[in-house]
Amino acid sequence: MFRRIHHLGYAVRDAAAAAEFYRLRFGAAPGEPEPVEEQGIVAVMFPVGESRIELVQPTRPDSPVGKFLDKRGEGFHHVAFEVEDLDAALAELDSAGLDLIDRRPRVGAGGLRMAFIHPHDAFGVLTELVESGEHKE
Amino acid sequence: MFRRIHHLGYAVRDAAAAAEFYRLRFGAAPGEPEPVEEQGIVAVMFPVGESRIELVQPTRPDSPVGKFLDKRGEGFHHVAFEVEDLDAALAELDSAGLDLIDRRPRVGAGGLRMAFIHPHDAFGVLTELVESGEHKE
Repeated sequence: MFRRIHHLGYAVRDAAAAAEFYRLRFGAAPGEPEPVEEQGIVAVMFPVGESRIELVQPTRPDSPVGKFLDKRGEGFHHVAFEVEDLDAALAELDSAGLDLIDRRPRVGAGGLRMAFIHPHDAFGVLTELVESGEHKE
Repeated sequence: MFRRIHHLGYAVRDAAAAAEFYRLRFGAAPGEPEPVEEQGIVAVMFPVGESRIELVQPTRPDSPVGKFLDKRGEGFHHVAFEVEDLDAALAELDSAGLDLIDRRPRVGAGGLRMAFIHPHDAFGVLTELVESGEHKE
């Protein structure tokens, strides 16, 4: 079902500083900061092979990522796997009794349809499924 | 410098149970458990695109992953990026003053040369660099 790691999200206090670190030390090519108002974040991404690293900085302390930083500090936040058919995937997982944060897809960064699975049903890993149009006709 | 996400390591209490979850729910194809005595772990891997998920279970409570589980619980443990020349990468990062857990490469799962960068110098992310022979002559 998983076609690739679409992206790996890091929670950071300062996305510009983190982007500069990866540019300077590892030759990464970060894009422009992208605000996602609904989630209270600004994201900076850079490609690594067929995947991306997403540096996620909260724009409000009460946003989910803001609360995450307060509780856990900087570090891994979520992983996103690309699936071909998000509706079918969610229906299957829902019928298997998994705790889905989003039982229906919503629209995330880059305008892609995505949904989160609760980490307590995925061995502590906040897992996103994303339906990317990139590989489709 | 990063050619791809080589693997993403999850710390789990029961690698067989986690592998079965990913097999059943997401159609993953986990390999056989691989013990790495030196690190006090057993790892089960499954491919996702050009990357892998590595399910890491401690075999001793006092191993680094055992301590991690006690402190943080299950979840993301480390990310490994493939680099072409690990010695050159480590020399460059060392001269830039980064805190390297391994200033010289050691041999990890699969017999690959690898080294860890300390998470406090990588925005809270335990970052492994791995030199894979897979793309080399």
